[in-house]
Amino acid sequence: MTRKDKPTLAVVGATGAVGTVMLELLSTRQDVWGEIRLIASARSAGKKLVVRGEEVEVIALSEECFDGVDVAMFDVPDEVSAHWAPIAASKGAVAVDNSGAFRMDPEVPLVVPEVNAAAARVRPRGIISNPNCTTLTMVVALGALHAELGLKELVVASYQAASGAGQPGVDALREQIGKVADSRTLGTQPGDVRRAVGDFGPFPAPLALNVVPWAGSLKDDGWSSEELKVRNESRKILGLPDLKVHTTCVRVPVITTHSLAVHAVFENEVSVARAHEILDGAPGVVLCDDPENGEFPTPADVVGTDPTWVGRVRRSIDDPFALDMFMCGDNLRKGAALNTAQIAEVVAAELTERD
Amino acid sequence: MTRKDKPTLAVVGATGAVGTVMLELLSTRQDVWGEIRLIASARSAGKKLVVRGEEVEVIALSEECFDGVDVAMFDVPDEVSAHWAPIAASKGAVAVDNSGAFRMDPEVPLVVPEVNAAAARVRPRGIISNPNCTTLTMVVALGALHAELGLKELVVASYQAASGAGQPGVDALREQIGKVADSRTLGTQPGDVRRAVGDFGPFPAPLALNVVPWAGSLKDDGWSSEELKVRNESRKILGLPDLKVHTTCVRVPVITTHSLAVHAVFENEVSVARAHEILDGAPGVVLCDDPENGEFPTPADVVGTDPTWVGRVRRSIDDPFALDMFMCGDNLRKGAALNTAQIAEVVAAELTERD
Repeated sequence: MTRKDKPTLAVVGATGAVGTVMLELLSTRQDVWGEIRLIASARSAGKKLVVRGEEVEVIALSEECFDGVDVAMFDVPDEVSAHWAPIAASKGAVAVDNSGAFRMDPEVPLVVPEVNAAAARVRPRGIISNPNCTTLTMVVALGALHAELGLKELVVASYQAASGAGQPGVDALREQIGKVADSRTLGTQPGDVRRAVGDFGPFPAPLALNVVPWAGSLKDDGWSSEELKVRNESRKILGLPDLKVHTTCVRVPVITTHSLAVHAVFENEVSVARAHEILDGAPGVVLCDDPENGEFPTPADVVGTDPTWVGRVRRSIDDPFALDMFMCGDNLRKGAALNTAQIAEVVAAELTERD
Repeated sequence: MTRKDKPTLAVVGATGAVGTVMLELLSTRQDVWGEIRLIASARSAGKKLVVRGEEVEVIALSEECFDGVDVAMFDVPDEVSAHWAPIAASKGAVAVDNSGAFRMDPEVPLVVPEVNAAAARVRPRGIISNPNCTTLTMVVALGALHAELGLKELVVASYQAASGAGQPGVDALREQIGKVADSRTLGTQPGDVRRAVGDFGPFPAPLALNVVPWAGSLKDDGWSSEELKVRNESRKILGLPDLKVHTTCVRVPVITTHSLAVHAVFENEVSVARAHEILDGAPGVVLCDDPENGEFPTPADVVGTDPTWVGRVRRSIDDPFALDMFMCGDNLRKGAALNTAQIAEVVAAELTERD
């Protein structure tokens, strides 16, 4: 099959933090696409970016952009997706959206290919949503465990990277670290880091030499939007509308790769050996669990890789039905660009098999 | 009462990280002590340190050090305490030990004055233990909630500061931050931070731009010693031998002040209003919970203060008997020196009332 016979892909938001990773991924994954069209705001139009080793000129977002497009990926803010994804769909493209605009819409499937690829086929609005990056840090591994053990309840604490708040988050963290790096005393008196750092960037408190128990916006009863996303999206992806989920989201001074401490309660009694067996064979999961030899996942080792890494697997001492685990996933790859690319490939395969 | 009539205090480990904070505390708290004797290893003997505005010469640890001592605080490694605390006790002093050597000994009370001060009076070995710093980050607040609501189960994820591993931990983190501070790219490729940092200090992986799901030594079934301490010590302090506790301990790039995400399940139905009321009036607790105005505890604001700070109090959406919270406490103060000083003061009051 030549490129001419293959589906056309549009990447909307090609110049953003996730878009940049997306172009890198599209250049290294199996080449299922014919034309790849790069779309961004008018400000970035005319810029030339490299995909699959070729320079491609970025065009400005407009209705006409979607002419002849089979799949349109959106890596843009919620309000941009809310407006433009339905337009892409009305022009005949399947929109794969990485924003929060449609995730909980009952007519929009929320897809993680390793867990619920089949859900991508039923898309009454012509839109498929990509989950939030924090949910994606755990849901592939939890999907594998759920299939064998039956998941009942989750208690999740997150260690979220600065790039979850986009490039401004990364820039703010690097700048803050620069400001505290030379001190031998900062971080020992109340507020000293706050004063040294000055500008918090997109965060509500300093992130260098600190952790911040907040991500997203304030929702009812003191919950953050990020915490509700983890609960609601996990339920939808796993097909468990009654799953109990309790989450506390915390930002940490890491550039990229989210981590989660996960306490998971199952219908069936668990063992570390069985959990290892399930996780070791699960697609998209790497088991990294040998603390005696210093083996557990950390963001510094996981960043830039595709899978969900799982370590510190322990059976709860006080509950034979529960596992405690530590998981890491690159929030820009599996947490965003990679999962979007995988969904788009599922759609491409469907379109190709139809032809 | 003049100093001559007051009890004599010995501080063993006066020159260490916790010892340094201890001398600062002894200089600012109510002055219940007569002589304060500073004791350290032979290496530090002769050094002069300031306590209560006066220079005091450090003496080398020996049996004779404890002659005439009423209370002897130990801020030294486990094996030093294991040897010397019983010697101090045999010489008639009450040993208040901040190591792990005696905490789970059934004949040694494990005391947090706000929670179980009375336990300090029953000490068949003449030794009282001070809990681990991670347990101390939450147990004052949980004790207050337990008294009203009845605690059944805890799921805890920690965000532990570098100084939990002593001064070498702080030095390692500052050095590592210096090595990554000027880079615009580190933290984006697998292992790049590991290579840039080189020496991990007392940690099993880089801590700058990273989080490390490990603290302490390896125990049975994949648990770390730190995780078992949180479980076993919480049970003992709260007097709840059947409390279910599931903990994952993680080190974060913060100098001082541990944080915990705590999911607590109670016997009784809970509400945020009731929890706020209990926490707001609890001795040793500061409620800091107004996310709309950016108010939640973070290590950068809590470091250098005495109380346990509690914020992000939410009733679990899927369990009316459970609260999700975020707590911070200075691991060198309440987590070590302050609680030890408070225990010693409880003993001093008892000795004074006896006279």
